[in-house]
Amino acid sequence: MDFPITRIKGGIGAAKGFATSAVSCGIKNPESDRLDLGLIYSEVPCKSAGMFTTNKVKAAPVKVSQANLRKGSIRAVVANSGNANACTGLPGIHDAKSMCGDVAKGLGLKSTEVGVCSTGVIGLPMPMTRLSPNIPTLVSGLGKKKGNDFARAIITSDTHEKEVAISFDLGDHRVRIGGCVKGAGMICPSMATMLCFITTDANVAQACLDEAVREAVEESFNRITIDGDMSTNDTVIVLANGESGMPSARRNSPACRQFRTAMKWVMLELAKAIVRDGERVTKFVTVEVAGARTHLDAKKVAEAVCKSALVKASWNGGDPNWGRIIHAVGYSRARIREELIDISIGGKLACIGGLQADTPMDELREAVSGREFVIQINLNQGEAKYRMYSSDLSPEYVDFNRSEYAYWKQARKDGLV
Amino acid sequence: MDFPITRIKGGIGAAKGFATSAVSCGIKNPESDRLDLGLIYSEVPCKSAGMFTTNKVKAAPVKVSQANLRKGSIRAVVANSGNANACTGLPGIHDAKSMCGDVAKGLGLKSTEVGVCSTGVIGLPMPMTRLSPNIPTLVSGLGKKKGNDFARAIITSDTHEKEVAISFDLGDHRVRIGGCVKGAGMICPSMATMLCFITTDANVAQACLDEAVREAVEESFNRITIDGDMSTNDTVIVLANGESGMPSARRNSPACRQFRTAMKWVMLELAKAIVRDGERVTKFVTVEVAGARTHLDAKKVAEAVCKSALVKASWNGGDPNWGRIIHAVGYSRARIREELIDISIGGKLACIGGLQADTPMDELREAVSGREFVIQINLNQGEAKYRMYSSDLSPEYVDFNRSEYAYWKQARKDGLV
Repeated sequence: MDFPITRIKGGIGAAKGFATSAVSCGIKNPESDRLDLGLIYSEVPCKSAGMFTTNKVKAAPVKVSQANLRKGSIRAVVANSGNANACTGLPGIHDAKSMCGDVAKGLGLKSTEVGVCSTGVIGLPMPMTRLSPNIPTLVSGLGKKKGNDFARAIITSDTHEKEVAISFDLGDHRVRIGGCVKGAGMICPSMATMLCFITTDANVAQACLDEAVREAVEESFNRITIDGDMSTNDTVIVLANGESGMPSARRNSPACRQFRTAMKWVMLELAKAIVRDGERVTKFVTVEVAGARTHLDAKKVAEAVCKSALVKASWNGGDPNWGRIIHAVGYSRARIREELIDISIGGKLACIGGLQADTPMDELREAVSGREFVIQINLNQGEAKYRMYSSDLSPEYVDFNRSEYAYWKQARKDGLV
Repeated sequence: MDFPITRIKGGIGAAKGFATSAVSCGIKNPESDRLDLGLIYSEVPCKSAGMFTTNKVKAAPVKVSQANLRKGSIRAVVANSGNANACTGLPGIHDAKSMCGDVAKGLGLKSTEVGVCSTGVIGLPMPMTRLSPNIPTLVSGLGKKKGNDFARAIITSDTHEKEVAISFDLGDHRVRIGGCVKGAGMICPSMATMLCFITTDANVAQACLDEAVREAVEESFNRITIDGDMSTNDTVIVLANGESGMPSARRNSPACRQFRTAMKWVMLELAKAIVRDGERVTKFVTVEVAGARTHLDAKKVAEAVCKSALVKASWNGGDPNWGRIIHAVGYSRARIREELIDISIGGKLACIGGLQADTPMDELREAVSGREFVIQINLNQGEAKYRMYSSDLSPEYVDFNRSEYAYWKQARKDGLV
């Protein structure tokens, strides 16, 4: 970052002119009062941008939000956790639209000015009888300083809410960007399986906003993996309302470039937070590939290593196992030459020219003993680089994901299935 | 199978004119007398064919065996478990060649008439001081009825040896095909991570043999996955010595077609045995994709489902989770339409037209409660089909693969690292 930024409080509610709210509807669990429905609202008209899962099986709220963004800008976003509203057919579309409609009515907006997101179990109807009656309370509860409530309302198997906010100067004006994410499972590139919401009071042209979002997603959420599974609900929504008072930043202007840098910083911070809070994750591993012939080759190598079950299991075990890393490099389909590959683990050379390096085993084990470390793979074939963020794979992850039967039982109790 | 076959005893040693042998060298564990070095020998000149890992990081024995097969037919194969001789550089090549050389000397063959295979830990030098002195005993121990010894000598984390043998008639002649495999970890298509050895006394032209092996591997070992990791050592070697006395079967002759069918049956049987004995596997799942627009689309869908960590975890938990299956179908990159997809689990309809079917949950849970079941996915878009064989992913698999440190400690004790 070539300009100063300051971390500030408030998360998604930090930027000027935004209000947020959250309530508990019992979608996650009818017997608990955990927050599971949230709302973000820009008090003035704003610009918006979104990016969505590339999974061909898209959840109903993804389809509805995409349609609404195509029609114009959205000014509010309603999001629930506990049910993904995915594989729910036309009734699911109807439910997602009715969430937008109810919120729009409360806020005096058009239904298409509201985005909608859902996350949770796939294939079960939305428990609208529990959700809908809470929307008036959700709307009337809108306020400042409730960013954290919203961040908590969208999490599922996450162990804690994940939010960040920064302020920085664009010319003479102080600007804020804040955001929050939910992640935990089904995390894989293009894009990570998650919901991300970002608000900013920067005043930027639509073209600048679009470019900033595309670029930041590519270098953040598309660079992380936990379990290699891509979700049906991935969504990033960014609202920019210009309330900082700055003059509008055109695409390619110095202010826009600065805004893009800040947006990248915010998204990368949130993306890393998702990996660190992945389901039953104990290690945060940065994989840096260098010396590839092309960008695509470097990416293939990074993805193969970051997604290998055996490599990830070895990280869980604190085993500096470069043999498993090089075997994943070998099947990545990138152009590589075994005898040129160097691998460092935590800054210590583990493999040189495809062979075991001299570094004592104790030093390598020490290097992977911490909660975070870096794996560097130099293919020594060219100049291209790629960086990804990954986690270990733990026995507890598998155990945690063995069954969603409890959700089905609840749905039957609700008379939904 | 449109002609009768009979299962017979003897595994890799069942065919006429072959002898096998196995010894314990302490490669797997110096303190145990587990068999870890095996030999197959055709008492007469024979034809041979091989297929090898497509991983670009190839173990030394793979490179040596490939080279020897290119030079002409091989007549003997030496194989060890406990050390993969992978990522071992020129010394590894030297060790693999010396294994061939020592065996060739004992058998009065040229060094290039011997194939060599290794399986085990990657990146550690071969403990040749323990291995080489045992080769004379290995050679002198050659005999009939030792197929099972060989099958036990090649296994690593497998819980038991896996072998099969059949006899059938080609014209007036009784022919035998026998084989054995090792599998357990690093199992993924193209090809499965494993060693497979097959002997037959059929008399077939080289072109017929090559086609039979290529086709059978494609429909067996390339259709299985346990953990999605492709190994550096995958090898299939087939020796055909003609000792059944039948006249030579030319490519495309009725006898060759019958031979190909029998070879497919044998390899498929061995491939399934690998999945059933996968590391900490509790379920054997057949995934049948139908109604795809192309063969490649069907394959993409099957592979995505069979490799999804979340799908496999749900199988482990006995959870008939069609939502996770359809989400993997969605990211498979195949051309699909969500609203056309039907999914059956154990013959019970779980999802129809992308939505939950009426089958009671208890029936679906019953369908996945057994050790083996079938998942059928109909894309309803065309006529193409693809079948794969997969396993669940268990917490115990991850736990089992957390560390290979014990191997390194032994290697240090041996003065190898």
